Amino acid sequence: MTYIVQKFGGTSVADLDRIQHVASKVREEVVKGNKVAVVVSAMAGETNKLNEWANQLGGSKLNAEYDVIVSSGEQVTSGLLALYLNKIGINARSWMAWQIPFVTDSIHTKARITEIQAAELKASLDENCVAVVPGFQGVTKNKRVTTLGRGGSDTTAVALAAALNAERCDIYTDVDGVYTTDPRIVAKARKIDAVTYEEMLEMASQGAKVLQTRSVALAMLYDVRLQVLSSFENKPGTLVLNEEEILEHETVTGIAYSPDEAKITLRRVGDKPGIAANIFGSLAKASINVDMIVQNVSEDGNATDITFTVNQTESERTSEVLHNLRNEIGFSDLIADQNVTKISVIGVGMRSQPGVATTMFKTLGEKGINIEVISTSEIKVSVLIRSEYTELAVRALHTAYGLDSS
Amino acid sequence: MTYIVQKFGGTSVADLDRIQHVASKVREEVVKGNKVAVVVSAMAGETNKLNEWANQLGGSKLNAEYDVIVSSGEQVTSGLLALYLNKIGINARSWMAWQIPFVTDSIHTKARITEIQAAELKASLDENCVAVVPGFQGVTKNKRVTTLGRGGSDTTAVALAAALNAERCDIYTDVDGVYTTDPRIVAKARKIDAVTYEEMLEMASQGAKVLQTRSVALAMLYDVRLQVLSSFENKPGTLVLNEEEILEHETVTGIAYSPDEAKITLRRVGDKPGIAANIFGSLAKASINVDMIVQNVSEDGNATDITFTVNQTESERTSEVLHNLRNEIGFSDLIADQNVTKISVIGVGMRSQPGVATTMFKTLGEKGINIEVISTSEIKVSVLIRSEYTELAVRALHTAYGLDSS
Repeated sequence: MTYIVQKFGGTSVADLDRIQHVASKVREEVVKGNKVAVVVSAMAGETNKLNEWANQLGGSKLNAEYDVIVSSGEQVTSGLLALYLNKIGINARSWMAWQIPFVTDSIHTKARITEIQAAELKASLDENCVAVVPGFQGVTKNKRVTTLGRGGSDTTAVALAAALNAERCDIYTDVDGVYTTDPRIVAKARKIDAVTYEEMLEMASQGAKVLQTRSVALAMLYDVRLQVLSSFENKPGTLVLNEEEILEHETVTGIAYSPDEAKITLRRVGDKPGIAANIFGSLAKASINVDMIVQNVSEDGNATDITFTVNQTESERTSEVLHNLRNEIGFSDLIADQNVTKISVIGVGMRSQPGVATTMFKTLGEKGINIEVISTSEIKVSVLIRSEYTELAVRALHTAYGLDSS
Repeated sequence: MTYIVQKFGGTSVADLDRIQHVASKVREEVVKGNKVAVVVSAMAGETNKLNEWANQLGGSKLNAEYDVIVSSGEQVTSGLLALYLNKIGINARSWMAWQIPFVTDSIHTKARITEIQAAELKASLDENCVAVVPGFQGVTKNKRVTTLGRGGSDTTAVALAAALNAERCDIYTDVDGVYTTDPRIVAKARKIDAVTYEEMLEMASQGAKVLQTRSVALAMLYDVRLQVLSSFENKPGTLVLNEEEILEHETVTGIAYSPDEAKITLRRVGDKPGIAANIFGSLAKASINVDMIVQNVSEDGNATDITFTVNQTESERTSEVLHNLRNEIGFSDLIADQNVTKISVIGVGMRSQPGVATTMFKTLGEKGINIEVISTSEIKVSVLIRSEYTELAVRALHTAYGLDSS
């Protein structure tokens, strides 16, 4: 039997008309003879409304109740879609997380999935009953309702696909796939037919917000074939697969940019052993995610300058943490700079193709764009530049790596 | 330990302000040292909205999914109230029907309660944690969501009070109690301090729509002391109790009227044995509820006239059923008359006080009001009159039985 998981986000189920349209997408898979499980988000706007109510009455968060409230949005969509599928002659039923059960830990509002007992749901699928599953929600072993955090519906879909050993997990959204770069910046951006999980992870965390990082990581872990496609157009999207499944790789798959960076520089840090561990250990303890890190000996050779990037929203908290450590670390200045953007060139092909970084530096240099920080991994090269050069840099690199559509 | 159940309807939890007010009512009971379980309805308007969505997508009803959709309204209110109770320092948690579990049969949209396994909830109450329970919802043994039908939240509250062996079940509503008659008709109507279950049942089914008949019947069965009171005013309401708990009874407790009646007359029905059984058996099979029944020999003595009342909404269906039986029953005419109102005089005291019916007939006669049908039970006398005399009749009877406030 071939199991397919389909996932529709908030804009795809925004109103009753769109829910009917989603039903037609479900039918397409059913008539092919596939066993279909559909994961749905709350109707656009509902989660925000419920959130606002909860915030107004909650104040200090009681997360268990927050989850009871907001998870109701997905419950409603599931029931509505199941209703309508039956109306158009497709046998279907909804499955709340507690009915499956879709078990998570008890970290409310950002629970992690621990176990999906899908036997009953699978038996129902095998009797040709479409399963409509609310995304985002889970249940603890103690029968409390949990939610997986914003964007958790993608995670629900991938986890369900893994539990069902599904042929494919189709993530329907309002774009028709993953692009070589942001089409709003580069008109010649091309839709990519297939990317690897690793590339997709870099694209997602670098600012291409099509798929949640967490769901891609989960798909990679359980080898779930993902497809990102449009719920409004009827054409194939982008497949996210294992590297082995992609026959030919471009050297560079895509260019990502992230404007949400802040560059923090600590001047004249005492050059003693353990200083870096102290700084970054303290930031980790404060749950601040540090991305790029560069350390240079300062001009006179007696001290060190340390530069790193954090998310802009963490910039102030980062300054606080470091100022509290000032006596221990002994820096002269802390400079926080938010006018920076990270540009990344991504592709598994660069493993076997040297010179990718060189092309990048040369291209930016030719445009007179100064590189402030560099960091590399096996499948990407990232640089930090002044934000005002973002569009220029992305366009130049897109052309330089031969990604422009003809 | 003293357990109290409080129930708040849709208008009492209509918005966030009112939910905060409800929390203050909960606190009043908590500070008295009571263990409190609160049953809440959906915020006013929510159930209608969800209903409309379900109807638009459902068409032919798939009731199991309908229940999943509409039960979410009560879920949201429960979470919000639990959130806010915690915010003001009262330990509380929500309990969905499936968490308790609050088990029903699987007749979706009008499920009947089969079992409440309240041990876990009770243990939580005993640890001074207020239980917030969504009204209206249940769960089947097969873990499907059910609802108890409109007004089911009263039933939830009474059933929970029975399961907890609660001291009292307080039904908060937008009126401050049960009145001797409808205050919109009789300005001198008085709030009643205490009525018996039997009286309340007659009042409820006779058109005094304060409490659902079903919840009163359940309260009688399990000996649950009910109180009907206002969530907006701070004063005692009306207690609904066992007859033994009320020391002194008025002869007549209240006057009810029901304008939703239709009088059906079958002329010249063949006077054979089994005819009545055939007529009323067929109506029962069609789920049509028949109320008053009168049979007279017709003028020439060769046939019989049968008159009975049904709810106005069933009038047309009743005609259809009977016309289909015409060959078997052989009546000459079927007359359906909707311009009738049933007036009832109710009181357990009339058991020991003869003459109550006489007073009724005499009072109506003096006002020139013709009585068309009479029916009596141990604790009530009902008559059918022309609808246009309703107010006149109710006022005259209210005065005649000494119910006017001074």
